[in-house]
Amino acid sequence: MSEGGYEFDAATALGPEVDGGGRRMDVTPGWDINGNANGGYVLALAASAMRAASGRPDPVTVTAHYLAPVTAGPVVVVPEIVKAGRRLVTVSARVEREGRQLVTLLGAFGSAAAPGEPIYLGGAPPELPPVDQCVPRSPTQGPVEVTLMDRLTVFLHPDDASMQSGQPSGEGVVRGWFGFADGRPMDTLALLLAADAFPPAVFNLAGLPRGWVPTVELTVHVRGLPAPGLLRARFQTRFVTGDAFEEDSELWDSAGRLVAISRQYAFLARPS
Amino acid sequence: MSEGGYEFDAATALGPEVDGGGRRMDVTPGWDINGNANGGYVLALAASAMRAASGRPDPVTVTAHYLAPVTAGPVVVVPEIVKAGRRLVTVSARVEREGRQLVTLLGAFGSAAAPGEPIYLGGAPPELPPVDQCVPRSPTQGPVEVTLMDRLTVFLHPDDASMQSGQPSGEGVVRGWFGFADGRPMDTLALLLAADAFPPAVFNLAGLPRGWVPTVELTVHVRGLPAPGLLRARFQTRFVTGDAFEEDSELWDSAGRLVAISRQYAFLARPS
Repeated sequence: MSEGGYEFDAATALGPEVDGGGRRMDVTPGWDINGNANGGYVLALAASAMRAASGRPDPVTVTAHYLAPVTAGPVVVVPEIVKAGRRLVTVSARVEREGRQLVTLLGAFGSAAAPGEPIYLGGAPPELPPVDQCVPRSPTQGPVEVTLMDRLTVFLHPDDASMQSGQPSGEGVVRGWFGFADGRPMDTLALLLAADAFPPAVFNLAGLPRGWVPTVELTVHVRGLPAPGLLRARFQTRFVTGDAFEEDSELWDSAGRLVAISRQYAFLARPS
Repeated sequence: MSEGGYEFDAATALGPEVDGGGRRMDVTPGWDINGNANGGYVLALAASAMRAASGRPDPVTVTAHYLAPVTAGPVVVVPEIVKAGRRLVTVSARVEREGRQLVTLLGAFGSAAAPGEPIYLGGAPPELPPVDQCVPRSPTQGPVEVTLMDRLTVFLHPDDASMQSGQPSGEGVVRGWFGFADGRPMDTLALLLAADAFPPAVFNLAGLPRGWVPTVELTVHVRGLPAPGLLRARFQTRFVTGDAFEEDSELWDSAGRLVAISRQYAFLARPS
């Protein structure tokens, strides 16, 4: 735990409201890949301000379009209430720096506490060996540095981890454990980070370049309140068309319940 | 073919620009479910105006949040360019009537013509019997009327169609053919319609109510330019948590190529 609280809470803390609307937020160093803030972290940062504007406890479905790399430093997040409904509050937001828009978002906020029991129909948590038999996410990804990994506990299923040493498994799947290095408990804001915190599943497909994978759009559906403890995550890329691909995730809590799914649209890394 | 052109082109035609920004568009009667315009049709209508604003040929990834039912009649679609990039133009939009926002959207527009050959990794078009051995989508859905079906050629796989007579298959899957009743050729705008034009796959799960399923959010990723001819579609719901569920689709063209995937977040119909 960092002095005064958990790192993720400090890194997504609500800043003061600024003249002209919006809220100053700080993109904290150390949540990045080669100096560019991780997309899941930026999503959580923006959603923190959107959630505050909504007056509701949880993101329910949030979409971000990434317009430019986000480096560490102050930004202004400008949330606007689109509709305040009974069950959901719909909020748009832009993340700006010096008047330039870096990320634009649209989301619905409400309560993620499911009314009634979950019904699981077509899936189950991934079977994972215990953490100490899994492989830590490498602090490098091809030619780039993943500083983010100092903040997180991400351990990969041994069958999916060989891509980290340049040996794709041949299946576009990555499974593993997710938590915070400082033991911060899970909540629905953390799910937004988790949805983009693993090495791209596409790296397990042979013949594709590794490196910085630019996400165009990321949508996360929060499906429940996570229980304490590590998440089990499963990421999959099924289709690569030209240089575009999708990555889907399922996030399961320590009690074995589905707590989020996500999908992103991204482009392959440029060959280095 | 309707006089003067195809029905879908008339129903998504660009109206005149209006004072104060935006464009008048007409929500055409007959693309509805019990009087409420189909979500895929409204998405295509809004994307038609967004595409025109972007100056690019195709929607690439588009997200809609549905705020209120959309009945037939004039609306104003107000697109705003968020960022005009080299490859993609990001556009937000709102669909308004008498100053009230009905739908809010965020999308990226560009060329859907994939550079290079497609690589398919984890999927293939659904195997479907010929159209004449499939089951037409019913013009009713539980207690509601699906007027939309007069415009479309939607034929379901016989194994997935029994829910139409109240017998769920037990698997949250619906497969079938998609086209226009008047033979309009496929294009990327039509894919947005197709992504919401089938009976909800969740109706094939036992014990769940049928009726109007309110979509909260729908995101479509366009992955290619569709060849002429009918689409093959596969819809699946894997997880129902409380009364929330996701529905994923894959849309394949007549040449066997993946042309779109979609995911929506929706709530179960209220028991009638």
